[in-house]
Amino acid sequence: MKYGVAAFPSKKLQDLANSYRKRYDPHYELITPHMTLKEPFEVDATTIKDVAAEMLNIANRHKPFKLHTTRVSTFSPITNTLYFKVETNAEVVALHEDLHSDFFGGMPKHSFVPHITIGQKLSDTEHADVFGQLKMAGIDHEEVIDRMHLLYQLEGGSWTVYETFRLTGDDQ
Amino acid sequence: MKYGVAAFPSKKLQDLANSYRKRYDPHYELITPHMTLKEPFEVDATTIKDVAAEMLNIANRHKPFKLHTTRVSTFSPITNTLYFKVETNAEVVALHEDLHSDFFGGMPKHSFVPHITIGQKLSDTEHADVFGQLKMAGIDHEEVIDRMHLLYQLEGGSWTVYETFRLTGDDQ
Repeated sequence: MKYGVAAFPSKKLQDLANSYRKRYDPHYELITPHMTLKEPFEVDATTIKDVAAEMLNIANRHKPFKLHTTRVSTFSPITNTLYFKVETNAEVVALHEDLHSDFFGGMPKHSFVPHITIGQKLSDTEHADVFGQLKMAGIDHEEVIDRMHLLYQLEGGSWTVYETFRLTGDDQ
Repeated sequence: MKYGVAAFPSKKLQDLANSYRKRYDPHYELITPHMTLKEPFEVDATTIKDVAAEMLNIANRHKPFKLHTTRVSTFSPITNTLYFKVETNAEVVALHEDLHSDFFGGMPKHSFVPHITIGQKLSDTEHADVFGQLKMAGIDHEEVIDRMHLLYQLEGGSWTVYETFRLTGDDQ
């Protein structure tokens, strides 16, 4: 089964992201707006309890982190994906690293760019057009993320939350 | 903000439900297949932490319960809603009752019919037609539900999981 780890921001930020995703993100229907902390990975359904146990350990080692988004950015020319860029900080980087320990198969090949996708799979023309508009509109939003979610994917591509983990930092 | 409490069944049962929902349930895109434990209710965003705290108490008082679905049923003539009927048992009834204590505003007006919706808002003709087919197809699936989810609704109608609670029964 395919699992992933994400943080869901507040309703306010999700509503804002969805106002764009509704038009520009074909994954709008599959999952609500989120910041990916760990890209989809395959785990046998029987070992998911071990993954959940390890995630609980991780949640106990990390405190809530600040999510501050200051601008709309793009992954172009790699992909025509638009996103709210989330400022990197030590806390979210440490959390991301812990979610890519040897237990989880190690670090990903590409570097971690914290973000909330608001548009993807756009044509070149649409991408340029929408990016131009959204850069003008801008964004400045800050909040605290105090939990992360372990999700799994259904056949149709939609994601179900298996479990949430509060970032308590109790074991720090 | 609007909140609700639901249990999400296994991927297997969700995939099966979605094979019908995809065609027959206009809410397909808003939430993955689920059994509602508490109908949507309004709570101020500032008091959601109290609700979550109370739900944790409840989760500690209840053990995992059996979800056994044996047939497709309908809420017709009240609404043209088709669902996997979930056999009632003492555990799920007790959990439902606890989620409707005075703290939560008391018991609902209509009686609790545990179910997983697979089609709704069908025309009379379509309802009769699909119900006939699904009754023939039948279902017999049993699993254990060991957690419940507190969700909130976004502007577009989709639901985000706020937190999961494992039914530990530790305080029983």
